[in-house]
Amino acid sequence: MIKVGIVGGTGYTGVELLRMLAQHPEVELTAITSRKEAGMPVSDMFVSLRGRVDLAFSTPEEANLQACDAVFFATPTGVAMTQAKELLEQGVRVLDLAADFRIKDTAVFEKWYGMPHQCPEILEEAVYGLPEINREAIKGARIVGLAGCYPTSVQLGLAPLLAPQANGDKSLIDTLHLISDSKSGASGAGRKAEVGTLLAEASDNFKAYGVSGHRHTPEIEQGLKAIAGHQDIKLTFVPHLLPMIRGIHSTIYANILPEAMGMDFQKLFEDFYRNEYFIDVMPFGSHPETRSVKGSNQMRIALHRPGNGDTLIILVVEDNLVKGASGQGIQCLNLMFGLPEHLGLTQIALLP
Amino acid sequence: MIKVGIVGGTGYTGVELLRMLAQHPEVELTAITSRKEAGMPVSDMFVSLRGRVDLAFSTPEEANLQACDAVFFATPTGVAMTQAKELLEQGVRVLDLAADFRIKDTAVFEKWYGMPHQCPEILEEAVYGLPEINREAIKGARIVGLAGCYPTSVQLGLAPLLAPQANGDKSLIDTLHLISDSKSGASGAGRKAEVGTLLAEASDNFKAYGVSGHRHTPEIEQGLKAIAGHQDIKLTFVPHLLPMIRGIHSTIYANILPEAMGMDFQKLFEDFYRNEYFIDVMPFGSHPETRSVKGSNQMRIALHRPGNGDTLIILVVEDNLVKGASGQGIQCLNLMFGLPEHLGLTQIALLP
Amino acid sequence: MIKVGIVGGTGYTGVELLRMLAQHPEVELTAITSRKEAGMPVSDMFVSLRGRVDLAFSTPEEANLQACDAVFFATPTGVAMTQAKELLEQGVRVLDLAADFRIKDTAVFEKWYGMPHQCPEILEEAVYGLPEINREAIKGARIVGLAGCYPTSVQLGLAPLLAPQANGDKSLIDTLHLISDSKSGASGAGRKAEVGTLLAEASDNFKAYGVSGHRHTPEIEQGLKAIAGHQDIKLTFVPHLLPMIRGIHSTIYANILPEAMGMDFQKLFEDFYRNEYFIDVMPFGSHPETRSVKGSNQMRIALHRPGNGDTLIILVVEDNLVKGASGQGIQCLNLMFGLPEHLGLTQIALLP
Amino acid sequence: MIKVGIVGGTGYTGVELLRMLAQHPEVELTAITSRKEAGMPVSDMFVSLRGRVDLAFSTPEEANLQACDAVFFATPTGVAMTQAKELLEQGVRVLDLAADFRIKDTAVFEKWYGMPHQCPEILEEAVYGLPEINREAIKGARIVGLAGCYPTSVQLGLAPLLAPQANGDKSLIDTLHLISDSKSGASGAGRKAEVGTLLAEASDNFKAYGVSGHRHTPEIEQGLKAIAGHQDIKLTFVPHLLPMIRGIHSTIYANILPEAMGMDFQKLFEDFYRNEYFIDVMPFGSHPETRSVKGSNQMRIALHRPGNGDTLIILVVEDNLVKGASGQGIQCLNLMFGLPEHLGLTQIALLP
Repeated sequence: MIKVGIVGGTGYTGVELLRMLAQHPEVELTAITSRKEAGMPVSDMFVSLRGRVDLAFSTPEEANLQACDAVFFATPTGVAMTQAKELLEQGVRVLDLAADFRIKDTAVFEKWYGMPHQCPEILEEAVYGLPEINREAIKGARIVGLAGCYPTSVQLGLAPLLAPQANGDKSLIDTLHLISDSKSGASGAGRKAEVGTLLAEASDNFKAYGVSGHRHTPEIEQGLKAIAGHQDIKLTFVPHLLPMIRGIHSTIYANILPEAMGMDFQKLFEDFYRNEYFIDVMPFGSHPETRSVKGSNQMRIALHRPGNGDTLIILVVEDNLVKGASGQGIQCLNLMFGLPEHLGLTQIALLP
Repeated sequence: MIKVGIVGGTGYTGVELLRMLAQHPEVELTAITSRKEAGMPVSDMFVSLRGRVDLAFSTPEEANLQACDAVFFATPTGVAMTQAKELLEQGVRVLDLAADFRIKDTAVFEKWYGMPHQCPEILEEAVYGLPEINREAIKGARIVGLAGCYPTSVQLGLAPLLAPQANGDKSLIDTLHLISDSKSGASGAGRKAEVGTLLAEASDNFKAYGVSGHRHTPEIEQGLKAIAGHQDIKLTFVPHLLPMIRGIHSTIYANILPEAMGMDFQKLFEDFYRNEYFIDVMPFGSHPETRSVKGSNQMRIALHRPGNGDTLIILVVEDNLVKGASGQGIQCLNLMFGLPEHLGLTQIALLP
Repeated sequence: MIKVGIVGGTGYTGVELLRMLAQHPEVELTAITSRKEAGMPVSDMFVSLRGRVDLAFSTPEEANLQACDAVFFATPTGVAMTQAKELLEQGVRVLDLAADFRIKDTAVFEKWYGMPHQCPEILEEAVYGLPEINREAIKGARIVGLAGCYPTSVQLGLAPLLAPQANGDKSLIDTLHLISDSKSGASGAGRKAEVGTLLAEASDNFKAYGVSGHRHTPEIEQGLKAIAGHQDIKLTFVPHLLPMIRGIHSTIYANILPEAMGMDFQKLFEDFYRNEYFIDVMPFGSHPETRSVKGSNQMRIALHRPGNGDTLIILVVEDNLVKGASGQGIQCLNLMFGLPEHLGLTQIALLP
Repeated sequence: MIKVGIVGGTGYTGVELLRMLAQHPEVELTAITSRKEAGMPVSDMFVSLRGRVDLAFSTPEEANLQACDAVFFATPTGVAMTQAKELLEQGVRVLDLAADFRIKDTAVFEKWYGMPHQCPEILEEAVYGLPEINREAIKGARIVGLAGCYPTSVQLGLAPLLAPQANGDKSLIDTLHLISDSKSGASGAGRKAEVGTLLAEASDNFKAYGVSGHRHTPEIEQGLKAIAGHQDIKLTFVPHLLPMIRGIHSTIYANILPEAMGMDFQKLFEDFYRNEYFIDVMPFGSHPETRSVKGSNQMRIALHRPGNGDTLIILVVEDNLVKGASGQGIQCLNLMFGLPEHLGLTQIALLP
């Protein structure tokens, strides 16, 4: 059994980790910290866990995280980078659900997150937690910075078009005018008291936000450049807030290059993801629904090409709290400890 | 034109007042105060008002409320009672949407609201703002404490059964075992940043709250006693939170006394509300829907008596922000200034 | 492995059975029938099952249900009673999710369901599928008529107050004036094309329905009489439609008899359900939320007694498609085949 | 008073017409037809109208539509074109909310709507009902084919960029790679009993539909070509279904031509719509919300240009049932009868 601790489990990614880890056959939950809620049983805060998770929140001091095999940080950005070093020195593997270890360029990090990076040397070592792209590196990693929710959907939606090995090194699309029109449920904003995400404000409503610039854009562009093996990537990323709790839908637009007009894109995607347990390439022309992955670690992708023209549309759905966060975290944990990648992650989506 | 000011217009009852008063033919909006937001155009906060309301929030000092004919307090409980006296002395009529002037017994007020009352002498003068019950008193009032949202639905749902004049002084129901199982949309909780009313917490969910005791119970019991003309009233009031924005539905249960088993309750209700513009007694056995009054000052009531037995069920719907708050406030304003009671309040509900 | 077939799996209870049975360690799904959709992979209709359930819908003729160990009927009322006999004769156990085998009095059945009963002799044999009440009978049953969704919540909410063994044969409450004010998500109406349950009609809305008489009232009264061991039971049952998909919340009101005013009701409930895996008696005064059981077979119950008076309020939540239907069905299946009662039913609720 | 009749008022555009026309100071509602519901008071179907609209549905024969000054068709596509001729001959003005008179090319109409056009000569005469573009023609029209809901948002979002007069005949954007990623509430699907728009299917969910080809694409392209005065228009239009009732949000992407990189697009839009009562060009970089126009005839538009690059993003919101349908219809009616364009259309959006 792998001993797992969670730092800061009072948010939505925290309760999702608890839900899934409590049912994971090879994991023993040993500690969950929250300085503010220390002493409170987690099932008092998340009643869904009553009778199933007996832990109480503890202070970091009491939690004895050094005795864990792995520690998840389900904290706001800025926390993991102050504690990761000590844990790594004790031989503990670290998985961060926030942005501390996602962006390699510390100047970019500082620009978008408004704080200097505390441990650039560990950042350098950290592996980007997107298993379908980075599987081998994750297996050997001591520390993983998990991909963001939106970035997971956009990168996996575009990877087959960009990865040189997938298409014999030919360029297929105009990589300087990529567009991702993405929509997320309100749980993506976290469990913070804010007027803007009150039910009375955000339900029965729809809007874009962060259109002129969003933190996920540099993360996605960094990832796409790594996948493509070149720097000529420019993405217009427009996030929107959906009046519902869970689910991300990215509608991605790419212009097909003249020399690739004859490409069989459906086959390209099917080949690229053929052996992936969690990636479902649906029949050409399908319309994936967010509810088809609700509560599961599945991602579904479908392609469209209206009028057989030069615009390729990629539709991608995921549960932002599972494949976009905690589920992907457990997928990485499995890889890091040599377990079957889907262990504890086989729950079927809740529909309706 | 009646010059109207609003104190504390940054909440939902505030924006509702603005929406309706901006379209009221005899009202001139002259000031809206918010110390915190002073200087900000109200239409920056409530974009629905762009192009229609040009006011900016002002500090109380700038607002010159003494020059108004009437001032609404759309503030948390505890504010109006510190400012009412001065305004009244200047000849300004006061309408309070909070609880400052609802409960006549200051000990009861203090118990449920956790603060001593600041102006008991004005409280004594204040008229309870429930026009269908208190019309004549409101016409002559200098200060009105508007009925709460839930209390409006329960009192008007029970009034025909309790009012002595309606039933020839006969007792019809067991007044010691009244039950109101009430449900409200989340806007009833106000525009405050709180975790419990986040979309990700309160949508796709349903729960009761305050079951062991709620502030509205003493207000309702006080009102019912006044209507009945006696003290033998005991109500079990259970509020619930609906996963939607607007609307209250009260399901009221009353035991019919043996001597009233032959009563025609439908006729009793129709007669009682025959001349009321805003009260719609639907055909016996109807199921009123909250959406049928969304955005309007209408209330709809329907009666059921399963198996013609001794249980009478009264279903009542209203929009908690309109008939349950701001609309009722304007209804009182009209009465206080001798205008037709429904002036500016004739908007039809938004359906679907 | 138990070979299980499903008749009529195109509705919500059908897809829930598939979701849970596909993850059940001792079940082999062998057939699912739908004459209308024969040939279509179930995962084309319920995309959540892609990659997890390979069955296609088949005609009843192709399905060879006689070779199953157990068959679920997830059909409208009226279907199971025409096919149960033949299956039972082949040694197949039958579990019906509809109402065919719930109501023992065929005259009552005919009145409420508008059809004569086709197999009264099998109805007589059938066991009512409410394991916490009927466990031993279910273990030995050949055929189970599963309890309805609302009836499950009301009966388990009242059972400790009525069961003679629980309270030393003393009467505790006035059983002639029981009230259940119940609310259900829209999935309870099934997957039928109807205007009234369109999103544009039923979301952002709340209403009661069937107030003057609902099919579940006779089922609940029959169950309560069986639990109480006497006939003096009269329930006022008022169902309401919630603007959400899953979840039932019953708010139950009972008048405490004078001789029981000193009773410790909390202890009574805790003792009654002490060994029940799926029943969570929460601390006195709690407010259970429907989301705390979403997607799980759990039920949560909490008690209130405002002002320590003579009204006892019992709050009950369940997922109408799980504990109120398919999950309870699998719970019965486990009992009928000697498996641990919670096998395959340990999923934790999805929150948020 | 203008005598107005409505053909087929049992859908959502019908009840919206009733809501707004009942409050229109210069309109007298004289008839509303529905063969199926003939005899039923409209307020029995749409309870929101109780006490405000006394009409009952009548058969077309009884309705005596020839005596009206104007008739709205709130019918499915295919109805108006069989009845328009006769009405026009009687001197009645006709406004069609369906697609019968939108598409000028009958071959295109037939391809997308699957039926031949019945009256090409009237189609030729019909004016496209988009007042901000076509005002003068509408004033003189006998028959108006009202713009579709999505098409209204996309055309008004792009018009300032395409209209030659707006930009001194210079080309500003690449008109062969326009993208509109549009999202609509479920009321856009109409009041038809269908599984796909049940609350239990479409709420708590998000998906695209019709991605490979949608009826609104040819309508939008026809409109954009007319605005631009040339044929080089190619639009990728992707509609999505929002889990809410009302509101359209179009996120439009245009590539700025090299020669127009210095353009002040904000000023262009503000100048273009300066005198439009219903079009609100918000400050540059705003994020319009659908709720800010709910129930009103307002449209709000905001521009973004991330990193000051070559991608211009236009965000457009409208209420699909008001500015996208019935409200725009009344706007056209006002123009056709020489009334102030906003008469009866000044209601402020319902927020929250």
